[in-house]
Amino acid sequence: MTFSSPEAAEAAFYSAFEARDLDAMMATWGSGESIVCIHPLAAPLNGRSAVTAGWKSIFEAAEHFSLYTEVAHQMHDATHAIHVVREHLAIGKEAGQRPPILSTNIYRKENDGWHMVLHHASPLHVGAPSISHSPSQVLH
Amino acid sequence: MTFSSPEAAEAAFYSAFEARDLDAMMATWGSGESIVCIHPLAAPLNGRSAVTAGWKSIFEAAEHFSLYTEVAHQMHDATHAIHVVREHLAIGKEAGQRPPILSTNIYRKENDGWHMVLHHASPLHVGAPSISHSPSQVLH
Repeated sequence: MTFSSPEAAEAAFYSAFEARDLDAMMATWGSGESIVCIHPLAAPLNGRSAVTAGWKSIFEAAEHFSLYTEVAHQMHDATHAIHVVREHLAIGKEAGQRPPILSTNIYRKENDGWHMVLHHASPLHVGAPSISHSPSQVLH
Repeated sequence: MTFSSPEAAEAAFYSAFEARDLDAMMATWGSGESIVCIHPLAAPLNGRSAVTAGWKSIFEAAEHFSLYTEVAHQMHDATHAIHVVREHLAIGKEAGQRPPILSTNIYRKENDGWHMVLHHASPLHVGAPSISHSPSQVLH
């Protein structure tokens, strides 16, 4: 699969995610071992073998995904694109939507087009206490 | 401040973080408005003004930080460096350490050396359920 732009790679990534299509998902990732996928709250998965296993587990654990995304921020140059994306995901027959996930997606231009090299997804607490609150609430 | 390598910029970033030194912190960031900082569970902060305000709030909320880091993964090329880092942070007089934070740090080579352009920090749940568990536990 060849992606002529980061946007094409990202569209394919989320399409494969929603379709639970492991081959299509892994076609969006870089070919080398220098790829990293961080699922929410989980330890980083490094390299194609671990990244593939992670998505396989997620796809097998759910019968159905419904997903839409909003781009929060983009940085592009000739060889790299960095997208920050809000993911709104419903799993199975859930009635309501979960709180959004916030993801950093990094794409790199390789000889055969653009591919994802890092996906870092984490929970976004809508209405969470401001970071200016007491130290006990400051996680970072 | 000029950083001749991503490692020098990262060392300065964490040194400024631990010292709660806002000027030193912001010296590690890129000069443009295309910078993004995501604190754990929080919405993305875009641009120098918002990123500065975020760190100011965090530094004012705590009297003391104790911090050490472990690099989990690195990807480097001529113009970009991507580091995935485990941050072990203690705030104030806390006896024990909090669960680690997992951060993606992106550095870009600019005319005046390497600077941070994105910091995405999120909680890492040590001993959290595997992503292969039931869909109700799959956040993503």
